[in-house]
Amino acid sequence: MATPILTLTTDFGQADHYVASMKGVMLGICPQAQIVDISHEVKPYAIGDAAYLIAQTYPCFPKGTIHVVVVDPGVGSSRRPIIVEQAGQFFVGPDNGVFGMLYDEAEKVRTITATQYFHKPVSNTFHGRDIFAPIAAQLAAGIVPRQLGEMTTDFCRPEFAKPIQGSDGMWRGVVLHIDRFGNVVTSFRGRTLVMNSPNFALVIGDKTIDRFVNTYSDAKPGELVAMAGSSGYLEISMNQASAAAQLKCAPMDAAALRL
Amino acid sequence: MATPILTLTTDFGQADHYVASMKGVMLGICPQAQIVDISHEVKPYAIGDAAYLIAQTYPCFPKGTIHVVVVDPGVGSSRRPIIVEQAGQFFVGPDNGVFGMLYDEAEKVRTITATQYFHKPVSNTFHGRDIFAPIAAQLAAGIVPRQLGEMTTDFCRPEFAKPIQGSDGMWRGVVLHIDRFGNVVTSFRGRTLVMNSPNFALVIGDKTIDRFVNTYSDAKPGELVAMAGSSGYLEISMNQASAAAQLKCAPMDAAALRL
Amino acid sequence: MATPILTLTTDFGQADHYVASMKGVMLGICPQAQIVDISHEVKPYAIGDAAYLIAQTYPCFPKGTIHVVVVDPGVGSSRRPIIVEQAGQFFVGPDNGVFGMLYDEAEKVRTITATQYFHKPVSNTFHGRDIFAPIAAQLAAGIVPRQLGEMTTDFCRPEFAKPIQGSDGMWRGVVLHIDRFGNVVTSFRGRTLVMNSPNFALVIGDKTIDRFVNTYSDAKPGELVAMAGSSGYLEISMNQASAAAQLKCAPMDAAALRL
Repeated sequence: MATPILTLTTDFGQADHYVASMKGVMLGICPQAQIVDISHEVKPYAIGDAAYLIAQTYPCFPKGTIHVVVVDPGVGSSRRPIIVEQAGQFFVGPDNGVFGMLYDEAEKVRTITATQYFHKPVSNTFHGRDIFAPIAAQLAAGIVPRQLGEMTTDFCRPEFAKPIQGSDGMWRGVVLHIDRFGNVVTSFRGRTLVMNSPNFALVIGDKTIDRFVNTYSDAKPGELVAMAGSSGYLEISMNQASAAAQLKCAPMDAAALRL
Repeated sequence: MATPILTLTTDFGQADHYVASMKGVMLGICPQAQIVDISHEVKPYAIGDAAYLIAQTYPCFPKGTIHVVVVDPGVGSSRRPIIVEQAGQFFVGPDNGVFGMLYDEAEKVRTITATQYFHKPVSNTFHGRDIFAPIAAQLAAGIVPRQLGEMTTDFCRPEFAKPIQGSDGMWRGVVLHIDRFGNVVTSFRGRTLVMNSPNFALVIGDKTIDRFVNTYSDAKPGELVAMAGSSGYLEISMNQASAAAQLKCAPMDAAALRL
Repeated sequence: MATPILTLTTDFGQADHYVASMKGVMLGICPQAQIVDISHEVKPYAIGDAAYLIAQTYPCFPKGTIHVVVVDPGVGSSRRPIIVEQAGQFFVGPDNGVFGMLYDEAEKVRTITATQYFHKPVSNTFHGRDIFAPIAAQLAAGIVPRQLGEMTTDFCRPEFAKPIQGSDGMWRGVVLHIDRFGNVVTSFRGRTLVMNSPNFALVIGDKTIDRFVNTYSDAKPGELVAMAGSSGYLEISMNQASAAAQLKCAPMDAAALRL
């Protein structure tokens, strides 16, 4: 039998025992699983950050991989646990938008209702351990999605996944992610549009960035510039310095684009 | 054969190569083991922090799991290496109190004397690599505890595991852990006692906390409150802010409780 | 078949998805591999830091282990990807000196030319995912080095691996690594020489350290001292304080030794 692969993306950090508790539950159900950490340093509650990380990473994993994402400010409320099937891979987590950047009209989404597989007693505060970890491990152990819940078309399609044009012509989006080097990834695509727009500007907080460059070294010292990152999104960067520190911004902050 | 599971809890951090050195030794002995990190961000030398983390986490792991804990300010001194059997799981580490919150009168504790399994030469400073990692991996590979040393009843039962009442009626304990969000976990249990005590107060440093609430949102902005955390211990928290930063406290700092 | 072991050492940090992307590619090729993180907190671009960490760690791993090191400021330039065979283990990464502390005249070095195994399309910026991860995983899956490229004797032997004596008699080296506790590891060996030298001094920045001690506790409060660390290199330390913070130094900074 093939080795099942499970990945984890959370905002739990690495100092506490929360991630290990999830892994313990998983290994109790599927001891031979490969468990890979994607990131546990998602900014707390930053759904868009998690959505970005999982959308960027899953294409590197083989078919059949099961990805668990737990960034869940609504834990204990009425938001539902879901399983998404997409491109031959599986995604388990809360229906709050963390999978919002995967949806391409071919996805299958199910509401998880198979409470018999939950880790009991189910707490109000730690569904990562009590619902998402055991359900993902059951998938790894051979249970198929239709045994875990019914298909639904009523699931969360978050706004941050698709910028919206305001009546003033500006596009409204968000900061998705800030990487180790302080590069600020926005939710805007459209490299070609930007390069051809004489009025291009990106606005975050009280700062306006209106120069688009192709490489870091095209930026002057201390200058904030826009680039088309390897992510496919517009990023704001500095040459050998942290754009995020300069902008004083964080994931889920508002961003605007003028074309 | 079932896949053996090994966990690691240390104060080594993740920037250096110490944890990987332990894993290399383990995999040389038991290549098919599942190795799970619980935390390597235990505050250096904070035995109570490690004791708290392992006690909170092990119930999520299946029977037969082998947990290695290396927070070892006395490395190279006369403190002995031990194996604890408890609830069908195994715990390997120094006899300095790191397992102090597991003991329930049913534990079996052995002094490790099987030097033939040590990683040679045994250094004075890195028993994690030279003693605890290889012994744990031998257990994972099928050696049984009685081949590793004799049972003992003379082992460390740390004070922090059990608060002590002073002559002034105050209970003396410690800060066990500070989580990612700055919640301060104390070594006091007793939710019911606290809720029914009109004179309740928790004292850490020069701060006194005398309000007990049920949820974070019951705290006013900037207010330090006591809660019964999911850990089972009394915790000091703030609403969307770091209680630890406000209290300027760290694991193993003294805490006092008035009932 | 034995479980293949792969290790990873990078300067990618743990907040982003870069390390997980590499693991996804590896597991697509060799799902049963054991993947061990050595460190992802190498100071960005600090080749000497990575060289130090892998040289210190690999002796703990069993024969056949495959180590991937990606600290690669020259990614996309003409520096070549290589495989090193040394002491029965394998090392995959850029030919920029990251393996410079392994070479002992018995090493076999090959230039990787087997582009058919690369992850396509090969990006200009992420050879970790596109070249090093898949090549290492192919080795883990059973491909032998001679199928991946020709032997070469023209490879990078970095200066930091071997201090150089200047015309003034001073030895020139670097800071290799700074550990969690702020101990500063230099590229100088020679404990015996140092102990017998009446004129001994280590110079980093504007600070001169001329006292050699055997243990941390021999240092006075606030005093910078030299010690022979467990690494085999001269280290600069303080008693319960960070020597690195006092010296304001970082990996790859210049260091000088007078004997």
